[in-house]
Amino acid sequence: MSRTIQPDLELAASLFEALSRATRRGRGIVRDSYGAGEQAAHDIVRSAASTMGLEISVDAIGNLFMTLPGRERSAPRIIMGSHLDSVPQGGNYDGAAGVVAGLCVLSAMRRTGVVPGCDLAVMAVRAEESAWFDIAYLGSGGAFGLLDPTCLAIRRSDNGQSLEATLKERGFDPQPIRERQRLLDPSRIRAYLELHIEQGPTLVAEGLPAAVVTGIRGCKRFRNARCIGEYAHSGAVSRPHRHDAVAATVAFLHHMERVWLQHEEAGEDLVLTSGELFTDSAMHGPSKIAGETRFVLDIRGLSDVTMDAVAREAHAAAARIAEAYHVHIDLGATSDSPPAVMDDRLRSRLMSLLERPFEMPSGAGHDAAVFAKVGIPSAMIFVRNEHGSHNPEEAMTLEDFAVGTRALLGLLMDFPI
Amino acid sequence: MSRTIQPDLELAASLFEALSRATRRGRGIVRDSYGAGEQAAHDIVRSAASTMGLEISVDAIGNLFMTLPGRERSAPRIIMGSHLDSVPQGGNYDGAAGVVAGLCVLSAMRRTGVVPGCDLAVMAVRAEESAWFDIAYLGSGGAFGLLDPTCLAIRRSDNGQSLEATLKERGFDPQPIRERQRLLDPSRIRAYLELHIEQGPTLVAEGLPAAVVTGIRGCKRFRNARCIGEYAHSGAVSRPHRHDAVAATVAFLHHMERVWLQHEEAGEDLVLTSGELFTDSAMHGPSKIAGETRFVLDIRGLSDVTMDAVAREAHAAAARIAEAYHVHIDLGATSDSPPAVMDDRLRSRLMSLLERPFEMPSGAGHDAAVFAKVGIPSAMIFVRNEHGSHNPEEAMTLEDFAVGTRALLGLLMDFPI
Repeated sequence: MSRTIQPDLELAASLFEALSRATRRGRGIVRDSYGAGEQAAHDIVRSAASTMGLEISVDAIGNLFMTLPGRERSAPRIIMGSHLDSVPQGGNYDGAAGVVAGLCVLSAMRRTGVVPGCDLAVMAVRAEESAWFDIAYLGSGGAFGLLDPTCLAIRRSDNGQSLEATLKERGFDPQPIRERQRLLDPSRIRAYLELHIEQGPTLVAEGLPAAVVTGIRGCKRFRNARCIGEYAHSGAVSRPHRHDAVAATVAFLHHMERVWLQHEEAGEDLVLTSGELFTDSAMHGPSKIAGETRFVLDIRGLSDVTMDAVAREAHAAAARIAEAYHVHIDLGATSDSPPAVMDDRLRSRLMSLLERPFEMPSGAGHDAAVFAKVGIPSAMIFVRNEHGSHNPEEAMTLEDFAVGTRALLGLLMDFPI
Repeated sequence: MSRTIQPDLELAASLFEALSRATRRGRGIVRDSYGAGEQAAHDIVRSAASTMGLEISVDAIGNLFMTLPGRERSAPRIIMGSHLDSVPQGGNYDGAAGVVAGLCVLSAMRRTGVVPGCDLAVMAVRAEESAWFDIAYLGSGGAFGLLDPTCLAIRRSDNGQSLEATLKERGFDPQPIRERQRLLDPSRIRAYLELHIEQGPTLVAEGLPAAVVTGIRGCKRFRNARCIGEYAHSGAVSRPHRHDAVAATVAFLHHMERVWLQHEEAGEDLVLTSGELFTDSAMHGPSKIAGETRFVLDIRGLSDVTMDAVAREAHAAAARIAEAYHVHIDLGATSDSPPAVMDDRLRSRLMSLLERPFEMPSGAGHDAAVFAKVGIPSAMIFVRNEHGSHNPEEAMTLEDFAVGTRALLGLLMDFPI
């Protein structure tokens, strides 16, 4: 096979344009999970795939597969893909870029007469975002029978319709979810490849168009941490007699930042964030010592060992600081998602295909985490985008997209596993 | 004069009982400033003073004076007093204890035939609490012509009626406030003496019934401080690229706590409090880096020099930390109230009258601060109370009250200035 073929960037431009036109609502993009917006996106890519002559199929829960047949049709296939839904008032590229990239690659093969060794499928995954049904990975998780069937009762955040009713209304079948039935057999999938906009500022800051993803950070999150002290007059209570919830929380979070720095210095991948922190607006006051805070501590990293160590230290520090400040700190339970490691051989081949090789972890979750979890060798390519994601200002240039997509095509042309 | 006479504690018991009966609303006390509750309290003490044969007068803005004539009626008088209003759902002792103490002392003199050298007046001060009109010291500040006349437009927090309309409805005259007219001449007041419950936990912790107040802490308060960063995905943004408003605010407040400790170690009087601290509930999220915090930094102490130094360090630290964390910290303006120093001779005499002498600063503001501000030698006695103040659980024993009131009587019986 020749390595000189190029992804079909004209197709990419026209698909991004069509997606934007069909699903822009005001300033932002609205491709509601299992709603009209997501369906419009599915219709657009399906139509393009039909025009290209790809085989089309849709599984029971609405995931769309667009397949270029390979020489050995019975061999495990390679799936490329990503999701087509967006958050409310999101951008045009989060998710869609991965589906468009897959179609550009297949279009290039089709036009140049390349017949791959195995089937190459582009999967337009349903409902990756948790914004609509308060659960992530509905499409990919459902395809592998991983969803808790009680999710069928979750109501859409905007219209209150249950997932079950929504699926039925769209002509899909909730039964496989109810029975935790697998729609995809991991042993029949050779690899999963996902191109996605970076979402963060790293590639912009580094001046790089694309990167290879080392892994998808897991998360250990103290979602409902509280510090309970005692409200009192800010002037009338000297330090030894205070039960100051803010002072204790500040001491705790400051300590955890130092813990982060120590792990970072040891070369471990870790990010720590307290994105919610508040005194009680019904009780606090400018001349009061705060009797309560609530906060979140979000721990993310590529290693469960690191995250567990940080969570243990959080508990130990909370106990020490609570005693020192005469308060009670209740970190509450963590909600956990494990990290997903990307396949080494795919990573190193992708690195060799980048003119300026760069690797980085993914902080956000992606469908690739679900594929990796069931044992499928998975890889991700990040493409630089301005302004982060999940907002109307998401911006990715076609030039950067081309760099990532060429690496994807190059990987497929000489697949290492 | 004999020192063996005792304050009239039966009168105290009956007055506290009558005040509680007349102004309890549900669990707590409601003596609304210039409202029915405060008026009921004024009526009760006025009636008791009349029964005792004291001279009664009320100034244009409703402050009540109950006077035991002295031998030299033309000499500057000594005023004892405190306020009779309470916060909504407050306790029975904050303020009232000082008025009752004065009456107990005058009753004892009356009953034992003591004629003081100068007039001794008990002043029931109006409207000390800012809970109703969002301005403190209406009664004492107004008596000395210190109020900004625009305060007449302030509306009561519960019923929306302006201070001006409220004064008129009660039969009082807003004119002296409008013209910044003095109703009391500081040169005609020999001293001001205020007994008050402590409000804080110090005397409970020390196991002491009463204390002498060294001074009333001033306040320098950054009421509307903000930290502006950038919202971003908590997992997708590595540390160097963050603009984390919570992390920066935590670093700032942690630094200010260290500054507090340094001043404390140097023997300076200081308390630092951040009683309000919050991310924006409309924007924050458990998996987001916070793009904004708002917080209060309340600096209190007995020395303007110390408070100014802390405020300067706050600005310097905010600039350093903002740069380090790539955020903007805007501390905003401070609202300031100067510290009030209590008179040395009165303090040391009061100390000599306590069986277990103990001195401490007052963190909360009191009418005594206004009297001290206009140059009147002032002193305060704190009486131990459980459960802090400004709540229905305020508790002071008559035994502790007697200790403080005996010191007040002892001071008057052999006045040092």
